[in-house]
Amino acid sequence: MPVTNKQEQTPSADNPVRVGIIGLGTVGGSVYTLLLDNASEIARRVGRFIEVVQVGARRDNPDCKTDNVVVSRDIFDVLDNDSIDIIVELIGGTTTARDVVMQAIEKGKHVVTANKALIAEHGNEIFAAAQKKGVTVAFEAAVAGGIPIIKSIREGLSGNRIQWVAGIINGTGNFILTEMRDKGRAFADVLKEAQALGYAEADPTFDVEGIDAAHKLTIIASIAFGVPLQFDKVYTEGITRITAEDVSYAEQFGYRIKHLGITRKTDVGVELRVHPTLIPDTRLIANVDGVMNAVLVQADKVGPTLYYGAGAGGDPTASAVVADIIDVARVLTSDPDNRVPHLAFQPDALSSTPILAIEDVKTAFYLRLSALPRPGVLAKVASILSDYGINIEAVMQKELKQGGGAGRIPIVLLTQPIIEKGMNAAIEKIAALEEIVEPVMRIRLETLNND
Amino acid sequence: MPVTNKQEQTPSADNPVRVGIIGLGTVGGSVYTLLLDNASEIARRVGRFIEVVQVGARRDNPDCKTDNVVVSRDIFDVLDNDSIDIIVELIGGTTTARDVVMQAIEKGKHVVTANKALIAEHGNEIFAAAQKKGVTVAFEAAVAGGIPIIKSIREGLSGNRIQWVAGIINGTGNFILTEMRDKGRAFADVLKEAQALGYAEADPTFDVEGIDAAHKLTIIASIAFGVPLQFDKVYTEGITRITAEDVSYAEQFGYRIKHLGITRKTDVGVELRVHPTLIPDTRLIANVDGVMNAVLVQADKVGPTLYYGAGAGGDPTASAVVADIIDVARVLTSDPDNRVPHLAFQPDALSSTPILAIEDVKTAFYLRLSALPRPGVLAKVASILSDYGINIEAVMQKELKQGGGAGRIPIVLLTQPIIEKGMNAAIEKIAALEEIVEPVMRIRLETLNND
Repeated sequence: MPVTNKQEQTPSADNPVRVGIIGLGTVGGSVYTLLLDNASEIARRVGRFIEVVQVGARRDNPDCKTDNVVVSRDIFDVLDNDSIDIIVELIGGTTTARDVVMQAIEKGKHVVTANKALIAEHGNEIFAAAQKKGVTVAFEAAVAGGIPIIKSIREGLSGNRIQWVAGIINGTGNFILTEMRDKGRAFADVLKEAQALGYAEADPTFDVEGIDAAHKLTIIASIAFGVPLQFDKVYTEGITRITAEDVSYAEQFGYRIKHLGITRKTDVGVELRVHPTLIPDTRLIANVDGVMNAVLVQADKVGPTLYYGAGAGGDPTASAVVADIIDVARVLTSDPDNRVPHLAFQPDALSSTPILAIEDVKTAFYLRLSALPRPGVLAKVASILSDYGINIEAVMQKELKQGGGAGRIPIVLLTQPIIEKGMNAAIEKIAALEEIVEPVMRIRLETLNND
Repeated sequence: MPVTNKQEQTPSADNPVRVGIIGLGTVGGSVYTLLLDNASEIARRVGRFIEVVQVGARRDNPDCKTDNVVVSRDIFDVLDNDSIDIIVELIGGTTTARDVVMQAIEKGKHVVTANKALIAEHGNEIFAAAQKKGVTVAFEAAVAGGIPIIKSIREGLSGNRIQWVAGIINGTGNFILTEMRDKGRAFADVLKEAQALGYAEADPTFDVEGIDAAHKLTIIASIAFGVPLQFDKVYTEGITRITAEDVSYAEQFGYRIKHLGITRKTDVGVELRVHPTLIPDTRLIANVDGVMNAVLVQADKVGPTLYYGAGAGGDPTASAVVADIIDVARVLTSDPDNRVPHLAFQPDALSSTPILAIEDVKTAFYLRLSALPRPGVLAKVASILSDYGINIEAVMQKELKQGGGAGRIPIVLLTQPIIEKGMNAAIEKIAALEEIVEPVMRIRLETLNND
């Protein structure tokens, strides 16, 4: 029963929030594309459209259609555009980027950046200037990519005294350690593969020596404890000396080795350290594998909370950059109706998309049947499922139970996804078989993969 | 080397944000206590103190010292206090609570509530009234307790199209399923224990039949997709029919059974369903055990992100309630300096707490030694560690390596926590033993438990 999805209302295109993007590499290009792809969804949330009016880039990005926007080869030209509300700095590095950000602030513009090195090394100066000018410098994307960890600590846990934070905040390092554990491979060997896959740079120092993680940890410590940014005080140790042997011995003791950034407030000071760390394999964070990031925060009232997601990559980083742009857009919009809307979207932009009846939902299923021990039962069941277009993914027929089973055989099946009403009809037929002696147990199954 | 922690500056106590709390049960009492316990830390963040000026409660809470605050037995008296900026509704239920919230809005007051049933069932009406009056109704604590999931979806992922959300959003149900799996116990048996432990109510219907989860899922779906709250359309199935057998069969197939709330936007509509679900045991969310909650969000740009923490309990819920109070306090404070501060704390409230040198940090250690195969090596090593006050937690002495080992024996030790400079000194002594033939490998170890 396909239902036509009523067109969702979006705000008028008048009076957009005007953005200038400086830097159109991987992240810059992804931000540009995201703002186009999701323009109407974002406008439904913000109540205004967000428009990129100028881009500063030394060269084109073939993935971005910039026909309808002013592109300046001199990136500083973007700062001279008085119509721009928000400057988005995505060139990276700490020299030109610092000039861009300081000049933008001086011109009274709000700034959004993904630049962890810039914030960790020059943030104190930058924030002081922003404070003086009454502008915001937003930097969610600087820590753990797409995970909203800055917002979660700074706002979501604002009622707590934070006690410590421990994070897997470098995806390259975590990929290498995961491969070493899963396949017993040596560090150098996996590093080479990570470079081939594009997970590690040609010069991997920033990642494998922990400098990238130290930048991020510096920022986390400041927002957790209210101390100035002090990158130069981070103890930083990389993963280059970890051997496959160590990974294996750790596992035999019930531990995994993760490259963690750890900051903790003690009675005598703040710990600020990046190093390989054994952690018990039963901890959720010990099971964060591959290039994924996760940050575990221990706070006095809420206890432990963990935040997991993609810590790098164009689109995940762009997600965080755009969330910051939207936050600033809300600040720019002084109308009280344009605070964060109660239900995330503007009240007049809510959609009448229908809620599906459960019979119209498609899922896979686990079925448990209790059958009399006669030949051909499974064939009959399979035939009924087949008649309803239901494919079997796996099946397990157990031996006869001893004792209490009263001569009944459990048959357990996993199916491929099917619309529920089809499954209901099939179950009715199966239950009617004379060999099936108890109600059919049915539990839905979801793979929760990324589609 | 203990360093005296410089007194952190806090703002003046003038002009506090004035709060009235209605309901002083478990959550109300915890909110009251949190605001006292963490008053100065919160003022460092907000730039103003938050003061409870009146409490409405039909009876005292013995855990709360309310000597310095007006306590009204008629809870509606609190609404008449014109000095109050924010009303915090924590009585629960959907009748009196609805009256409290609607009257507070009518009087132009901002509202913070933890009441999932109220928001799921009457939120559309409440938000329309709030919108009309230009006030905020904040409800972070209504979903997944202390996890900032509303904020993360509504603000942190605001650049994305959300595709689906799947959550373990009822701790009681998750505790029961975890025990059934870990110990092969029957549902009814574990339920009885959960009731004895206080994890389940005497009437457990709301939890085990999925109604509580359906309330929360209703709210999640609205903020994810921009649809009105539609609690009556949630398909809800409990966990009462799950048997220990099902849990065991699922495990044999590589799955775990979790009670999930799932909402997904498809081409034809929105799925809104709470039911037991098999999920692959390799998924992070499959490893969320006991009373903990976790919400997995799949979005088009950031991909999957997961948010984990305590979904219930006084202090975790109070954490979310107070975060909402702080958010509203920031809106009330129109001064641009009182947006969310860049480094979470007000610039003049940053602390000069010293960053500790790594030598002064206390951690446990993993040590790997390579020794010549002579008797008594382990005894010598243990004796050195003991001299430095280092306790051994576990030890593993491997047999002689075949081939390439050149007659060397690996000795692997885990120690208890020790200040690093002590470990450095001990390692120096160990390395000087004539039987130790390679540099000592040392990796720090953290249990990441809640202290």
